[in-house]
Amino acid sequence: MLLSGGLDSSTVLAIARSDGFEAYAMSFRYGQRHEVELAAARRVAAHLGAAEHRIADIDLRAFGGSALTDEAIRVPRHAPGDDLGTQIPVTYVPARNTIFLSFALAWAEVIDAADIYIGVSAIDYSGYPDCRPEFIEAYQSMGRLATKAAVEGRQKLTIHTPLIDLTKAQTIQRGLALGVDYGLTHSCYDPVDGRPCGACDSCLLRARGFAEAGVADPAL
Amino acid sequence: MLLSGGLDSSTVLAIARSDGFEAYAMSFRYGQRHEVELAAARRVAAHLGAAEHRIADIDLRAFGGSALTDEAIRVPRHAPGDDLGTQIPVTYVPARNTIFLSFALAWAEVIDAADIYIGVSAIDYSGYPDCRPEFIEAYQSMGRLATKAAVEGRQKLTIHTPLIDLTKAQTIQRGLALGVDYGLTHSCYDPVDGRPCGACDSCLLRARGFAEAGVADPAL
Repeated sequence: MLLSGGLDSSTVLAIARSDGFEAYAMSFRYGQRHEVELAAARRVAAHLGAAEHRIADIDLRAFGGSALTDEAIRVPRHAPGDDLGTQIPVTYVPARNTIFLSFALAWAEVIDAADIYIGVSAIDYSGYPDCRPEFIEAYQSMGRLATKAAVEGRQKLTIHTPLIDLTKAQTIQRGLALGVDYGLTHSCYDPVDGRPCGACDSCLLRARGFAEAGVADPAL
Repeated sequence: MLLSGGLDSSTVLAIARSDGFEAYAMSFRYGQRHEVELAAARRVAAHLGAAEHRIADIDLRAFGGSALTDEAIRVPRHAPGDDLGTQIPVTYVPARNTIFLSFALAWAEVIDAADIYIGVSAIDYSGYPDCRPEFIEAYQSMGRLATKAAVEGRQKLTIHTPLIDLTKAQTIQRGLALGVDYGLTHSCYDPVDGRPCGACDSCLLRARGFAEAGVADPAL
């Protein structure tokens, strides 16, 4: 499973465990400006009993093109009530989920796993193309042809997206019911001294989720 | 385009150029025991006039599972006449082409490219699942849904596999006709002091290709 240390993927880890899986969690040091999320991923993996947690080093700065990996592109800040619009924002990282899923696919093959969990949602998200169900479905079809384990019939890949139809508030409620401590998670794209900025897309979506769920965010 | 510095991808670079493309070549430092191939990639990119050549650092040792990335797994050695068999060998790297293509897809998006070239062949190869046409086709379908550029109609991804139906000998003949200097390339999986071992799968396929083409290998 892919674990960023944010609200969504932390909830997914709890769901995978409650689905009866041993969880092998993978995070990435990819040149993100919010590398502090990796510490959150470590805390969450321990908190929710992941069997193993690996951090892979991959340099997405090699091609840039995103506010998250290129110091020259600023992360947009909003006021709390701002309309986030329907355009894909500059925090989009080219092909990020494609790359992350590919590492998960490789690791899955090595540990004889056929199930990959990812915390994408097509609701209350930033419009990223690689969070849509049609992308996930196409990735799964590709992945079923990609590996030695698949060809030899040992890996019938299933990509699980338990949050795909959930609002942020529903995700939070699901996670709370499963005992997730959201105080351990980190969502902000552009932290100031390790603390959430409160104004980036990710902070806004998170704040609205907690407000709608009627719960205080324990990370604030 | 993906450039390993080997015989196949070097030929593909020449073909992409002769197809009229500016070539942006990407190589990977992925913990491979034959990292010497990166020097070959650099030479070949310069020799064949790539517009740019980038080497991305990605740690595939994070999951291991291959003789190419795990020191504990030996690269098999063969006698020249050995039957290489039909089993996928231990030099297979889990999901390697999936990962490499994902980086190429990301870089393509950043530079506004829609065409990716890769030197896979379904003939005279090692049986790797991610070299088969059905894999490439599925990857292309996935890639067309994966990026912001695709969703916005600016990137209709085409994955070119000009070697897919060529024998190794035919690839060599094609490359020679395009002026490729194979003396600059490197194929060996397990070089000894930077020189080809002459006995791994890759050396054997290369030697048989040159023999069948009736040409001496200028790298020997």
